[in-house]
Amino acid sequence: MTATKEQQSQRANPQQDEDLGGVSPPQRNWKGIAIALLVILLVCSLITMSVILLTPADTLAGSDTKLTVEDLFGPDFHVHDPEALWINDVIYRNRNGHVIRFNILTNETEIILKNSTFVAFKATKYSISPDMKYVLFAYDVKQVCMEVWELDPPEVLNSRLQHAAWGVQGQQLVYIFENNIYYQSDVRSNSLRLTSSGKEGVIYNGIADWLYEEEILHTHVAHWWSPDGERLAFLVLNDSLVPNMVLPTFTGATYPKGKQYPYPKAGQPNPMVKLFVVNLYGPTHTLELTPPDRLKLRCHYVVMVKWISKTKTAVRWLNRAQNISILTVCDSTTGACYVLALCVFVSLQNQEPFFSQDSSRFFLAVPVKQGGGGDFHHIAMFTTQVRADQNEVRHLTSGSWEVTEIVAYDENSQTIYFLSTEGSPRRRQLFSVSTVDLFKRQCLTCDLNKAHCTFFSADFSPTRQHVILHCRGISLCLFLVLSLSLSLSLSLSLSLSLSLSLSQCFVPYVELPLKIALPPDFSDSRQYGLLLMIDSGPGGQQVDDQYSIDWDSVLVSSDNIIVARLDGRGSGFQGQKILQEVHKRLGVVEVQDQLAALEYLLKFPYIDQTRIGVFGRGYGGYVTLLLVKSTESLFKCAVAMSPVTDWTLHASAFSERYLGTPLQDDSRYQSSSVLQNIKGFKDQTLMLVHGTADANIHFQHSAELIKNLVKVGANYTMQVLLLPNIMIWLTQSSLTMGGNVIKVITDEICDFNTVQICVSELI
Amino acid sequence: MTATKEQQSQRANPQQDEDLGGVSPPQRNWKGIAIALLVILLVCSLITMSVILLTPADTLAGSDTKLTVEDLFGPDFHVHDPEALWINDVIYRNRNGHVIRFNILTNETEIILKNSTFVAFKATKYSISPDMKYVLFAYDVKQVCMEVWELDPPEVLNSRLQHAAWGVQGQQLVYIFENNIYYQSDVRSNSLRLTSSGKEGVIYNGIADWLYEEEILHTHVAHWWSPDGERLAFLVLNDSLVPNMVLPTFTGATYPKGKQYPYPKAGQPNPMVKLFVVNLYGPTHTLELTPPDRLKLRCHYVVMVKWISKTKTAVRWLNRAQNISILTVCDSTTGACYVLALCVFVSLQNQEPFFSQDSSRFFLAVPVKQGGGGDFHHIAMFTTQVRADQNEVRHLTSGSWEVTEIVAYDENSQTIYFLSTEGSPRRRQLFSVSTVDLFKRQCLTCDLNKAHCTFFSADFSPTRQHVILHCRGISLCLFLVLSLSLSLSLSLSLSLSLSLSLSQCFVPYVELPLKIALPPDFSDSRQYGLLLMIDSGPGGQQVDDQYSIDWDSVLVSSDNIIVARLDGRGSGFQGQKILQEVHKRLGVVEVQDQLAALEYLLKFPYIDQTRIGVFGRGYGGYVTLLLVKSTESLFKCAVAMSPVTDWTLHASAFSERYLGTPLQDDSRYQSSSVLQNIKGFKDQTLMLVHGTADANIHFQHSAELIKNLVKVGANYTMQVLLLPNIMIWLTQSSLTMGGNVIKVITDEICDFNTVQICVSELI
Repeated sequence: MTATKEQQSQRANPQQDEDLGGVSPPQRNWKGIAIALLVILLVCSLITMSVILLTPADTLAGSDTKLTVEDLFGPDFHVHDPEALWINDVIYRNRNGHVIRFNILTNETEIILKNSTFVAFKATKYSISPDMKYVLFAYDVKQVCMEVWELDPPEVLNSRLQHAAWGVQGQQLVYIFENNIYYQSDVRSNSLRLTSSGKEGVIYNGIADWLYEEEILHTHVAHWWSPDGERLAFLVLNDSLVPNMVLPTFTGATYPKGKQYPYPKAGQPNPMVKLFVVNLYGPTHTLELTPPDRLKLRCHYVVMVKWISKTKTAVRWLNRAQNISILTVCDSTTGACYVLALCVFVSLQNQEPFFSQDSSRFFLAVPVKQGGGGDFHHIAMFTTQVRADQNEVRHLTSGSWEVTEIVAYDENSQTIYFLSTEGSPRRRQLFSVSTVDLFKRQCLTCDLNKAHCTFFSADFSPTRQHVILHCRGISLCLFLVLSLSLSLSLSLSLSLSLSLSLSQCFVPYVELPLKIALPPDFSDSRQYGLLLMIDSGPGGQQVDDQYSIDWDSVLVSSDNIIVARLDGRGSGFQGQKILQEVHKRLGVVEVQDQLAALEYLLKFPYIDQTRIGVFGRGYGGYVTLLLVKSTESLFKCAVAMSPVTDWTLHASAFSERYLGTPLQDDSRYQSSSVLQNIKGFKDQTLMLVHGTADANIHFQHSAELIKNLVKVGANYTMQVLLLPNIMIWLTQSSLTMGGNVIKVITDEICDFNTVQICVSELI
Repeated sequence: MTATKEQQSQRANPQQDEDLGGVSPPQRNWKGIAIALLVILLVCSLITMSVILLTPADTLAGSDTKLTVEDLFGPDFHVHDPEALWINDVIYRNRNGHVIRFNILTNETEIILKNSTFVAFKATKYSISPDMKYVLFAYDVKQVCMEVWELDPPEVLNSRLQHAAWGVQGQQLVYIFENNIYYQSDVRSNSLRLTSSGKEGVIYNGIADWLYEEEILHTHVAHWWSPDGERLAFLVLNDSLVPNMVLPTFTGATYPKGKQYPYPKAGQPNPMVKLFVVNLYGPTHTLELTPPDRLKLRCHYVVMVKWISKTKTAVRWLNRAQNISILTVCDSTTGACYVLALCVFVSLQNQEPFFSQDSSRFFLAVPVKQGGGGDFHHIAMFTTQVRADQNEVRHLTSGSWEVTEIVAYDENSQTIYFLSTEGSPRRRQLFSVSTVDLFKRQCLTCDLNKAHCTFFSADFSPTRQHVILHCRGISLCLFLVLSLSLSLSLSLSLSLSLSLSLSQCFVPYVELPLKIALPPDFSDSRQYGLLLMIDSGPGGQQVDDQYSIDWDSVLVSSDNIIVARLDGRGSGFQGQKILQEVHKRLGVVEVQDQLAALEYLLKFPYIDQTRIGVFGRGYGGYVTLLLVKSTESLFKCAVAMSPVTDWTLHASAFSERYLGTPLQDDSRYQSSSVLQNIKGFKDQTLMLVHGTADANIHFQHSAELIKNLVKVGANYTMQVLLLPNIMIWLTQSSLTMGGNVIKVITDEICDFNTVQICVSELI
């Protein structure tokens, strides 16, 4: 999908919104945990390293061999992701392709699935059953590969397996077919159909429609297992009133037909949502969980469902205007929900609360005022009462930084584990905070073996005694190996010369949240072209310590230009004040900030003022167009890929979040539209790139712009890609997350040089 | 439409196919006719002149001011077309916009319609009723403008007036609405619905579906008046079995819908055709004219209908394989048809036979063997008998040249008037031939006032005593004014200096049917880039004496390159042998011939061998792709606009005419497909241009090519136009024929420079 980075940021970070204090259990064995952490600080941490180690030294260090786009997909730059996870023990896939079970306590490893099995099934994706006796393979991309499926709007009458996964106990299986949920208690038992209303493009059971997948849940999975596997909560989405969008098809048949799928644009009818729980043990019994009274008769979303006990779920409901969010606890035996917290304008709708075992307390990251800097997300501990207004809240953390995700709550040690931006918005370090006494806070990763790793993700074991840490990047291009007590099958060493040569690549400036990539043999006595990259929407972040080798690297290395990225107002992880600057006025401050960044950069003598380019994608494409329109001959070239040009044509949940509904007042839509004051494009050089089958930002956006550009005789070039979606934004980090999908699509990207057209102007 | 030139050539020329001789009435008053010709040699002849006269001398003569594409549409290059026609007298529109009635005999003129009326209706098109009392205006493009309508596939549920025209007597009116025919006996009478089966996209009454309009009749009008206005013959087309093609729409609505229309591709079900005659005087009575037994139960086309008396029509039927053509005479009182002539493989299906008043004789141009040069079209006189095998045929003309059109038959003088290529395939001169005695032939335009006009069209008055001649061009860039005895309101003079400067523009070579345009300040001591233009399909002609100022002129003038066009094998007007070389094997000899032409041209020292480009459109795009594929680094750049890439995806009537049906044997389709041996594109530089809403050659063709190009990693650029059709081929001559249509579309052609990309490589 070519959309904004907002989803990614939302997926990655938790946070919360209400009030009332709590009890504080005594402090626990810190040393034990720290040792445990060190012991299993493992596996993925060094994706970064493996890239470097596998790369011939001169490719990066010298300037003779330039990094090319092809290199990014070559074997030298292939990144091995062990995809480590907890199923009692750690399960990961080693470099040879074997799936390994690693016993933390005994330090023993065992092959539980051979690479030859993957070859036999032509499979890359696998999933081990909870009892470790079976494995699910995605062996036919058309049928199962979920990532591919997500990108593909459902076709009527072309039924196929839409989802298949293990449950949480033994060999429980759930799968979805023709929008209906099927259940098997074990691999040999008969399947049980749990729903029958499913109809492609109309009724969705346990699986998301386009809107819920892209804008609400950020996954196609819309069902949730109770911890004991006895119950399954699932959404039923009714899209019968949602208008259909047609994506044209041009090939593959004598008479190609367009693909239709429900897509609610701003102000159009949304899918109607209901939440059910089905009891799977004994005779199946399905019960609706009732929305809070306040939303019952109004359009609303269900944005989060989490089981907090065997029979209770926490559910977050959101009104269509997205300014009232209600967190409830629902009883799956009666269907009744009572309100835990109600808040106005929350930004992290998807974050899950962490509950104590007796449900008397829960933890959420909520915005808290921090002096003049405005609100920042911090951990609050709520003591639940039957009535929401009697809840107590106590704040465990504070400061001008954001809690980005609560990772775990260990009730034994009365400790919350979380990731935060403390120190710098670019960082993600793992912290613990005691939920008792003085709420003592401790950074667990800051001084870890002097690794200087500054961007972590974390995955706790079910017992919360161990954690898989994934180091995703370090500050200032200083790469160091985290020496592991347990090195598993990955052996790593440090290449200091490489890290030095790379250290020139990224120069973060303190004055602005700006990332600048310089050519490897940069000299400030020479002049370089500058390409401004804009690839982030509201709440997103471009300047962080995550490491990647991507198109930026190619541009810098092969084309000898400077690439800059800015996190201006509207971006995330710097507090609510900056984030909410774009509320009700998209496209105003973003443009101001990008121009300010350019002004700042143009002061440097090594930047050639006649060779400034801008490239934006999705929301960034939108900002790019506004930038071009509001300047005169500043840019030598500008490329907008899959831009939004009119928010009335975009998804309801996104557009309405920022601009409200256009039905009552479309003035905000009008003033934020690129199609207004089109004459600003008259003397600009613009390139548009858009996929005709883009299911997220429709080709329509570029088409409407063109229609207007033609009227004023603007000078533009259009590159149309005949692809469902464009994943031209190639990063090693995204490769590790969905390598196959991107590869497939990239193989079809005919003409990478297209976008290089702009670059060639700058060289 | 971006198709081949074949239709144009077919429309312009008559010819025929059978046997048996005839009677010869005595010779007639040649002098009278010649004088009459001189007297009214008028009006349009000098479109060419008016262009030149209206152009500042230095634009063409000097090299300081270059001719640009914008110039072609500017007022200086606006061509006034008087659109002269016969309604008893000559009716034409003068330069001021008044419609004038000109009495040939009295030499008097009278304004019958003021220009202010056109302004009031915002109309450009008009039509005078036969009794000269009323005028029809096309005052709302959406509703009436037929040319625009033709380009626009019909939308279901968007009913509008599809056609309106005067009948042949008084104020008879016929119009078509929702595919049904309506009739009014005069402007004030009630309208009578003649058919009721009409259904958009399914049943067409009296109006053509897409296939009949584009490939069979070459007009959307599918009804024909009897000479007395008492009867109307009309086609009923049933498209219910024809698969629908979808043209995607991207703008204009929140949820744009694609447009559907029936389009039979090769081998797919064709529209079923029936021919009816309705009696309009007295109680209306409708009768089907029965097809010949041989075709009755098989798929067939009706390709020509012509009334030859008050009750009889000549009808030509064609089997689906297009190798058996049957000419019948049908009695509209009984519906019975008897076969006049039957022939195998005819190329000019649309030509109308000319009948004597008693129907005992008729004239057609038919292929006749002329020594070793193969068959050429010549006029045959058939004496009709009830049984076809008893017909007698006599050949009135012979020689290694083609009769391109029989224009008139004057029974009083027993003379046939026709246009032919005698002297050169590039020419069209008006000849007369006596149908009696020695068939004396005479050229009527060859020495006309030493005009040296060599390309005429002709329109005879109903009495055949006068003719409107339209001089469309002269040989060798030598322009002379035809001094008129009657100069009407057009006064013209000769600009010798201009003609001299232009004479450098076109250098026809004798060795090959090749037209080369040289830059105005051409010097053979310099080197020039060469652009090979391919814009013609089977039966078309690129090298003729028709004059035009078009994109070629711009390229030559502004870009200083040489533009060449060739009529290779498969092209028309040079005899059947050359024409039929492409039969059953499209794309073979065309490529050989283009390469031969290039080889010939590259011998000239002033052509830079490193700057050779090729541009082809429609069928020419197809040939261009084959050329590129079969050569290695010959072309610096190649542009294929709206190319056909696979004949199975193209219209049945066209593909099957040359390759048969793919259902029985698709080997011819496979071997003629561009998508075969795609590796030939690997190291070529190719640009594709195609409109996504191209209703003739679907965007599908380019899309399928791209899909394959990507697989072999070929280097190409794609320009997609969001237009229904691309009329980028701008010529003054086509402007005179349908100026409005082209203008409208051109206004939407965003980026003319696109195609210039290739040119810039050559400069």
